[in-house]
Amino acid sequence: MSNRMWGGRYASGPDAIMEEINASIDFDKALWRQDIAGSRAHVAMLAKQGIVEQADADAITKGLGQVEAEIEAGSFTFSRSLEDIHMNVEARLAEIVGPAAGRLHTARSRNDQVALDMRLWVRDTVDQLDGQLRELQSIMAEKALAFAGAVMPGFTHLQSAQPTTFGHHLLAYVEMLGRDRGRLHDARRRMNECPLGAAALAGTSFPIDRHATAAALGFDRPTANSLDSVADRDFSLETLAAASICAVHLSRLAEEIVLWTTPQFGFVRLSDKFTTGSSIMPQKRNPDAAELVRGKSGRVIGALNALLIVMKGLPMTYGKDMQEDKEGLFDAMATLSLCIAAMAGMIRDMQPELKTMKKAAGVGYATATDLADWLVRTLKMPFREAHHVTGRIVGLAADRGVGLEKLELAAMQAVEPRITAAVYEVLGVERSVRSRTSYGGTAPAEVRKQAKRWLARLKRESA
Amino acid sequence: MSNRMWGGRYASGPDAIMEEINASIDFDKALWRQDIAGSRAHVAMLAKQGIVEQADADAITKGLGQVEAEIEAGSFTFSRSLEDIHMNVEARLAEIVGPAAGRLHTARSRNDQVALDMRLWVRDTVDQLDGQLRELQSIMAEKALAFAGAVMPGFTHLQSAQPTTFGHHLLAYVEMLGRDRGRLHDARRRMNECPLGAAALAGTSFPIDRHATAAALGFDRPTANSLDSVADRDFSLETLAAASICAVHLSRLAEEIVLWTTPQFGFVRLSDKFTTGSSIMPQKRNPDAAELVRGKSGRVIGALNALLIVMKGLPMTYGKDMQEDKEGLFDAMATLSLCIAAMAGMIRDMQPELKTMKKAAGVGYATATDLADWLVRTLKMPFREAHHVTGRIVGLAADRGVGLEKLELAAMQAVEPRITAAVYEVLGVERSVRSRTSYGGTAPAEVRKQAKRWLARLKRESA
Amino acid sequence: MSNRMWGGRYASGPDAIMEEINASIDFDKALWRQDIAGSRAHVAMLAKQGIVEQADADAITKGLGQVEAEIEAGSFTFSRSLEDIHMNVEARLAEIVGPAAGRLHTARSRNDQVALDMRLWVRDTVDQLDGQLRELQSIMAEKALAFAGAVMPGFTHLQSAQPTTFGHHLLAYVEMLGRDRGRLHDARRRMNECPLGAAALAGTSFPIDRHATAAALGFDRPTANSLDSVADRDFSLETLAAASICAVHLSRLAEEIVLWTTPQFGFVRLSDKFTTGSSIMPQKRNPDAAELVRGKSGRVIGALNALLIVMKGLPMTYGKDMQEDKEGLFDAMATLSLCIAAMAGMIRDMQPELKTMKKAAGVGYATATDLADWLVRTLKMPFREAHHVTGRIVGLAADRGVGLEKLELAAMQAVEPRITAAVYEVLGVERSVRSRTSYGGTAPAEVRKQAKRWLARLKRESA
Amino acid sequence: MSNRMWGGRYASGPDAIMEEINASIDFDKALWRQDIAGSRAHVAMLAKQGIVEQADADAITKGLGQVEAEIEAGSFTFSRSLEDIHMNVEARLAEIVGPAAGRLHTARSRNDQVALDMRLWVRDTVDQLDGQLRELQSIMAEKALAFAGAVMPGFTHLQSAQPTTFGHHLLAYVEMLGRDRGRLHDARRRMNECPLGAAALAGTSFPIDRHATAAALGFDRPTANSLDSVADRDFSLETLAAASICAVHLSRLAEEIVLWTTPQFGFVRLSDKFTTGSSIMPQKRNPDAAELVRGKSGRVIGALNALLIVMKGLPMTYGKDMQEDKEGLFDAMATLSLCIAAMAGMIRDMQPELKTMKKAAGVGYATATDLADWLVRTLKMPFREAHHVTGRIVGLAADRGVGLEKLELAAMQAVEPRITAAVYEVLGVERSVRSRTSYGGTAPAEVRKQAKRWLARLKRESA
Repeated sequence: MSNRMWGGRYASGPDAIMEEINASIDFDKALWRQDIAGSRAHVAMLAKQGIVEQADADAITKGLGQVEAEIEAGSFTFSRSLEDIHMNVEARLAEIVGPAAGRLHTARSRNDQVALDMRLWVRDTVDQLDGQLRELQSIMAEKALAFAGAVMPGFTHLQSAQPTTFGHHLLAYVEMLGRDRGRLHDARRRMNECPLGAAALAGTSFPIDRHATAAALGFDRPTANSLDSVADRDFSLETLAAASICAVHLSRLAEEIVLWTTPQFGFVRLSDKFTTGSSIMPQKRNPDAAELVRGKSGRVIGALNALLIVMKGLPMTYGKDMQEDKEGLFDAMATLSLCIAAMAGMIRDMQPELKTMKKAAGVGYATATDLADWLVRTLKMPFREAHHVTGRIVGLAADRGVGLEKLELAAMQAVEPRITAAVYEVLGVERSVRSRTSYGGTAPAEVRKQAKRWLARLKRESA
Repeated sequence: MSNRMWGGRYASGPDAIMEEINASIDFDKALWRQDIAGSRAHVAMLAKQGIVEQADADAITKGLGQVEAEIEAGSFTFSRSLEDIHMNVEARLAEIVGPAAGRLHTARSRNDQVALDMRLWVRDTVDQLDGQLRELQSIMAEKALAFAGAVMPGFTHLQSAQPTTFGHHLLAYVEMLGRDRGRLHDARRRMNECPLGAAALAGTSFPIDRHATAAALGFDRPTANSLDSVADRDFSLETLAAASICAVHLSRLAEEIVLWTTPQFGFVRLSDKFTTGSSIMPQKRNPDAAELVRGKSGRVIGALNALLIVMKGLPMTYGKDMQEDKEGLFDAMATLSLCIAAMAGMIRDMQPELKTMKKAAGVGYATATDLADWLVRTLKMPFREAHHVTGRIVGLAADRGVGLEKLELAAMQAVEPRITAAVYEVLGVERSVRSRTSYGGTAPAEVRKQAKRWLARLKRESA
Repeated sequence: MSNRMWGGRYASGPDAIMEEINASIDFDKALWRQDIAGSRAHVAMLAKQGIVEQADADAITKGLGQVEAEIEAGSFTFSRSLEDIHMNVEARLAEIVGPAAGRLHTARSRNDQVALDMRLWVRDTVDQLDGQLRELQSIMAEKALAFAGAVMPGFTHLQSAQPTTFGHHLLAYVEMLGRDRGRLHDARRRMNECPLGAAALAGTSFPIDRHATAAALGFDRPTANSLDSVADRDFSLETLAAASICAVHLSRLAEEIVLWTTPQFGFVRLSDKFTTGSSIMPQKRNPDAAELVRGKSGRVIGALNALLIVMKGLPMTYGKDMQEDKEGLFDAMATLSLCIAAMAGMIRDMQPELKTMKKAAGVGYATATDLADWLVRTLKMPFREAHHVTGRIVGLAADRGVGLEKLELAAMQAVEPRITAAVYEVLGVERSVRSRTSYGGTAPAEVRKQAKRWLARLKRESA
Repeated sequence: MSNRMWGGRYASGPDAIMEEINASIDFDKALWRQDIAGSRAHVAMLAKQGIVEQADADAITKGLGQVEAEIEAGSFTFSRSLEDIHMNVEARLAEIVGPAAGRLHTARSRNDQVALDMRLWVRDTVDQLDGQLRELQSIMAEKALAFAGAVMPGFTHLQSAQPTTFGHHLLAYVEMLGRDRGRLHDARRRMNECPLGAAALAGTSFPIDRHATAAALGFDRPTANSLDSVADRDFSLETLAAASICAVHLSRLAEEIVLWTTPQFGFVRLSDKFTTGSSIMPQKRNPDAAELVRGKSGRVIGALNALLIVMKGLPMTYGKDMQEDKEGLFDAMATLSLCIAAMAGMIRDMQPELKTMKKAAGVGYATATDLADWLVRTLKMPFREAHHVTGRIVGLAADRGVGLEKLELAAMQAVEPRITAAVYEVLGVERSVRSRTSYGGTAPAEVRKQAKRWLARLKRESA
């Protein structure tokens, strides 16, 4: 915008402004494949139902093929004065086919046409995102299997809490991404009803076969209410909501990568491919891609919020406000796709610094819970009492500046005389990790089991 | 706040501020039922697994029953210094049971405990909302059946576009609410995994049986990753997203009610119960409830947005930021519930003004499409040509200030000589509506079919 | 996106993904003018301070002129591998000037450079928006003066409440736009500090003169903290917030235009330039531009929300997340500019339907307050009692299906015997409007006074 | 909500639902002081203008005093059936004063009354927040002065970039908070116009003196358009926007505190008052207050977003949707106030770990820029060339695993023969920091100057 503001153009008159605000071809041309696919299915049905002559239908179908080829080849000229992708395609079709092209729009309106195109586009996009997420899950599950026993600190409040493993940590994200895919699948299933035939809003008096066009376009069924068919943008909202939650997951992982690559943490090393330098500080290796993934969550959430606002308070059925359903959605989907791809690249190349992680796992009395649990298990102490005893022992160790595993038995016994030397067995981070064998716990054997379960499932899904 | 700002309290020192910002009991006491249910299942499992003595477990169970009774009776004293519902319940339990109460928290942490309580609460709430939405659907589907043939204008751009019926219009919302319920069902299914046993974050070394507690609490299975179990708030986000879309649907219907009750539209009459007066304008009958439903969509969307922001960029696993998952969610769910109830009341009582609606349906050349379709069907004109011919005829009628059905045949023939008197059959609104027999169309017979389909389904669901 | 998803590109390897996510030249080239202006001021200062030789500075300045000319002429080749506008300009400068170009970046970093460019861009944009808003105010104030006495209904709850005038209604928006401009002015004033010289984050050891560059670029002063200078995006947030509130104002006016152009209201007629037709309903005259203005408020608010999310929780100082400050802002500013221009065109051309408005003003007992006020004034009745009496009289009139001015005196006296025939003077809408002479009230004389006050002020401002 | 969902209450009938959704007394009672203050000013003006008898005005004024005393004492009974604070106060007044109380509402409506109350409340709140922010600035500026020379790493991308000082870092936030206060001041100034006298929407025919009531209530002037006066909620939106930006600032500082208190960073130590323990991990010292401040930014932004959505698309003038302006705003203001108080407490008590910070400042070749600048200054190398040379030298040092200041001269000279031993002077972090003397730079002398400037200004402001 900056240098070509509206103010300056104002002299060109309101007509130009109306075209600028009204025309959607600059962005809805992204729907060209879907638009042509929809027209093909529609005209085939019109012919089968005897609403148009077969010869006209054949000519239109052939003409649509030519339009498609032209757009693919880049030789198609999009025109703003034709407003949108629907009119651009139809106008070119009329040039190719002649007046018969005018029969294509029988029993159809731009209202159901754009609703169809958008559903097809969102459905395609959901499928692509699903594939990308599956691949990211695979990368992470494989790394989880490889590093199932690599001890690292488990954090709460970003304070070392209990030791866990790098593999277990990665699997947490595999779970999140699994839910993200589940949400996309559900959205896909719910949107998979065909609005074509709703026409302007009330349906049509032509003897169309909506089930036929629905089937031809891969839908489960036609939509059941014509007003709703043209007024509904739930499929975009639901997909944006699923995308927003996914973007938040990626932002969490991105935050961790940013933390892990600081000199202070030093838990992982990113490949050169995913770091950048500074114009003034030659030593910098900045985790730009991670920061961008973190930041771009704002963009996806912003798009969800924007469309919710657009739809809020709109009376039935189609309102032009709904043209605002496209740009934000297109951008959000491309953004999420890019973020997944960037994350896949980062994780694939990322090298954990195993020694640093393990050393950090022992910091901050991270096995205090193991001590408390030992007191419960061995001395049959109620947990709350064990918790207090442990607190006093940790306090002693902190005063002396040593870790729990270095604190003398006598010191412990001064707090609780029944403690024996056997306690030291549970105070090491490796032992702590191995002991957490509850289902879904951090014990390496359990982590391997979960990683294999995921890998088997992912393999099945991609088959 | 206004008169008791923090500034004024500041003299009371940081301790008070820390308690104020940190304590959650003022709002998380809403989880008391869920908290006690979770503890019951946990202690039963601990006993079965031999982790606590059966006698202790029995005492704890009995004590929990007493706590429950006290809270129900309103005799329980919640204490801010005990921070949250978990500690409030446990502290009272300790008073009742003695030190054995301290065994309840074995193999558990507040991190998995609150994750459990929240899932249970959201699950309960989703079930209640589903019931309310089903009832609202029933009210609307019944009214749709009753008014399947009541002609009203169908709008696009809030301009009369084509005639439709009041019943068809109501069914559009039945479809929307059906998708809303589908989203809630999917969210419920996805969240229905039990986090109990994830403990602080890493699982536990006690030989717990997570499948047993999951089953006892009605979950499909335990969660599969302990870190994710305590770090995840997807279930709240997804439910808020579903609620936001539902709130937008209600806001659209609310906008229509506001429009319909203006003197200008006059399409419906609300009952006195759902209108209010003015302090200065005695004649006013304001659709306050509808306006509030419309406005409250902002509140629900705001809560979704807020929680997405809270979760954005949080590293694993639990961070105290996540305590902010409650108030907004609680408020949004109560708000949505109230909006559904208010809408159900409004719709149930609402009286359509059938004559006004029908008259409005004929305004603005709303059967122009019928004329165009007649030209296509009868004269085999390509639709685009029929569209242009219709436009010229409408222009003629508008110049003479008459409706299409009042325009002389000669005038039409001046534009297109092949038009015959048969054309008048399609120019009335009743006839137009009856002709739109495509699946999901506005023809009263089709509307009745769809209304009956819904009523049968809703009856099955509430059985 | 749809057909060129990241999944498909994935084969091209992570390098390509990194470039895709990292490079900003596709959008930050919008900053080219600002970037060159900043470099000019910087190098002039470097020379004046003796940090670079004057000859080098002259060569750089001349080279920058050539770069500027090339970009203006469209002959400049932007390169993605050079990442951003800064490096694109500098690289071309190096081709033109040779190694001396490398001296330009002395005592500067991309961190302060982009902070500068953005401030300059936002400042320019704010100035342009202010001019557009002032023009829209002028259009509305002139129409307000012309229609100061044109009676229309004043609505609360979208119910006729009291008569007002079209001019008074328009002036309400002039007030809102005035506040919008005030917010933009305040944002401009606050952002008008120059970050140049903050360098990477800590300032520089070169003897630069930050006050000189600040003055040369029209800033009030340099920023006072170098860390804040590169970490701050308040100026974008505040501008987006002001834009969001302005967009909400426009959405309210847009909603009114949509309502007013329905056949039911019929209060105004838009020009053909700002209405569109339908592909299937030839009679439609849709207020598309108004609907788009209403909908686009979502987009602007979405951008504000997105940037707030991006900035939330970012540690000092610059993080790459902050590259996400541009696209949403650019789009939101262009969107708002377009909306103002469209609204200016609509309002300028809009024709009020005076008879329809005036007739509507009398509907719904809109002068009931006048009756109540008459009872207070003439009979010295407490207002609350007058309110009740009026309510009973309105009830009588409603039962008889007549307006207040048509209700017989005897009927009124049956409710309150002291009422005299003088009461009829206050029951007409013209009289009602004329009587509201309180400051800022709807009396035409008062409206004219306020319109003239605004027109005088606007004239001064544009001088 | 949880156990008292609307579904369960449904049996109690729509009346109850209408009361539940419509009544605002549960939250708008927060406005009681403002409501009474407004009534006092109104009745005084009515008497002065001769609209009510002085005796009635005196009785009303006295009665208002009694109501005020009762509310302050907690003996006032708020009633939901009286809907809102206005009716609750007036009803009680009528009990005390008798029918004369009914004269108070002359020339007033709830529409202008609530607009007044809200403006007064927001104005009061803004003043209180300003005082709190000023105090937080003072705490930080004093600490900045004390630690002006305490070296710490300056980060970009959370990587060590260049050394800075703790004092300089704190001052960055003093600047941000200064802008926050500026925004609040501007909002206050803009909202400081009195809507009283706009009545329902059109003004009034009574000879009121709006300038008098405006002055009596501390406003700069009356509002200039009666429709706008009752339809406007800009003052709440603008204040929420300012609050959101402020909350984002606090979230950034909170994120830093969370980072700084990790064992990995260890830059600061929070007092016990602002840390909490864990139920299962006795060693934990969690920065809960910082996390809550970070998270609560979501809540404030959510409230802004919600109100923007509420107002979007509302036609003139007052709509009941606008009752949704209160709860979110009240909560957001209390939240922000609490966050500022918590941050003030944390910062006041916070102990920097000077040695750890300083050591970290030297990590990661943070003086590489100093080397590059030395090359430019001493060898007259163009900066870009110096940047490349520095990069190679850093590479050498990294290969050898030493810092720059430990790299032998010969190694440097192998890259650039003209380097002399004098270079070592600029490679220490203390020297680096001292060298950055540009205005607003990190040199301790400059930091002290800026800290003193702020302290002087803050002292003046609090005088």
